[in-house]
Amino acid sequence: MEQRLKKQLEFALEIDKEKNIFRQTHLSGYGRKENDAEHAWHMAVMAYLLREYANEKIDIARVMILCLIHDIVEIESGDTYAYDEENRKTQKQREDAAKEKIYSILPEDQKQELISLFDEFEENRTAEARFAHAMDNLQPLLLNHSNNGGDWKEHKVTSKQVYGRHKKTKLGSERLYQAADEIIQENIRKGNLRK
Amino acid sequence: MEQRLKKQLEFALEIDKEKNIFRQTHLSGYGRKENDAEHAWHMAVMAYLLREYANEKIDIARVMILCLIHDIVEIESGDTYAYDEENRKTQKQREDAAKEKIYSILPEDQKQELISLFDEFEENRTAEARFAHAMDNLQPLLLNHSNNGGDWKEHKVTSKQVYGRHKKTKLGSERLYQAADEIIQENIRKGNLRK
Repeated sequence: MEQRLKKQLEFALEIDKEKNIFRQTHLSGYGRKENDAEHAWHMAVMAYLLREYANEKIDIARVMILCLIHDIVEIESGDTYAYDEENRKTQKQREDAAKEKIYSILPEDQKQELISLFDEFEENRTAEARFAHAMDNLQPLLLNHSNNGGDWKEHKVTSKQVYGRHKKTKLGSERLYQAADEIIQENIRKGNLRK
Repeated sequence: MEQRLKKQLEFALEIDKEKNIFRQTHLSGYGRKENDAEHAWHMAVMAYLLREYANEKIDIARVMILCLIHDIVEIESGDTYAYDEENRKTQKQREDAAKEKIYSILPEDQKQELISLFDEFEENRTAEARFAHAMDNLQPLLLNHSNNGGDWKEHKVTSKQVYGRHKKTKLGSERLYQAADEIIQENIRKGNLRK
């Protein structure tokens, strides 16, 4: 087998480890915690289904690949919970080191391509990245809502924190932000989210 | 919230259940069994990374969505192991009933769109479906190879059965079929696969 394909298959096997990186969000039915690979799959399917609500014209292939790869670095750096202020301070530094390490398994051109896609998502600088971020927020919101806010209660999350996060949802989709707002308000009324 | 978006979000929540549909394939490191959502994610990322090897010109967005949704019906019908000859006899009938039920949650136009994508994959009638099938075969081959054929040994799978399955890999990618062939031969030599 030639070197190029060998490296690509080695990387394909390496990312299997993303299935062992667990998030704080629980599956619907308040089952076990969700892992990064499941989260990425869910985001990408949702992006396809909800693409009509993007604020701007988007290339859906690009949105899907941004969703699918955005957490691969966490194989090295671990998951950082959205509302863990302390760990979020070192997140960028940890993830930058991780991306260099993990994408170096690939042939040079694909290493550069995937780092560029990862950076595009992180910097939120394209229409596609903005819509992918809307999915990154909406997906756990749906799960948490279905679980009566179980994760928010466990981590004492406030509505202000959730609204802070959903600023990015609005940049990707005004319409989906409105839907998120309805869901957040309902959870405040039910006492699932602290004021 | 209007009915259309409500139905779309209901479907987005419903498919969360795919994370609880377990396959016979074990994760690398011979960890736990893999679930359908993880498998679909892995296939879609691999499709993007390996797209240069497709036999025909492909629309990568279409390949990715085929990969991502091809197992959603299994929420209703359950997983059918590739080498379970008995259960495979009823697979089509079970999955056809399942697709009608699960996709009916969506607005009518999206129900038709997703059923059509599912059928396209099943019937293997486009370049995109053929490449997606190559991923459907190559992904568990990589995992099984990394686990010294643990799943093949457990289910007493023969090399003839594996080659039978990989006929479809060849239709999607001659080059990746050659790679699969190298891997299968190595596993026959090691005694991981029965002759």
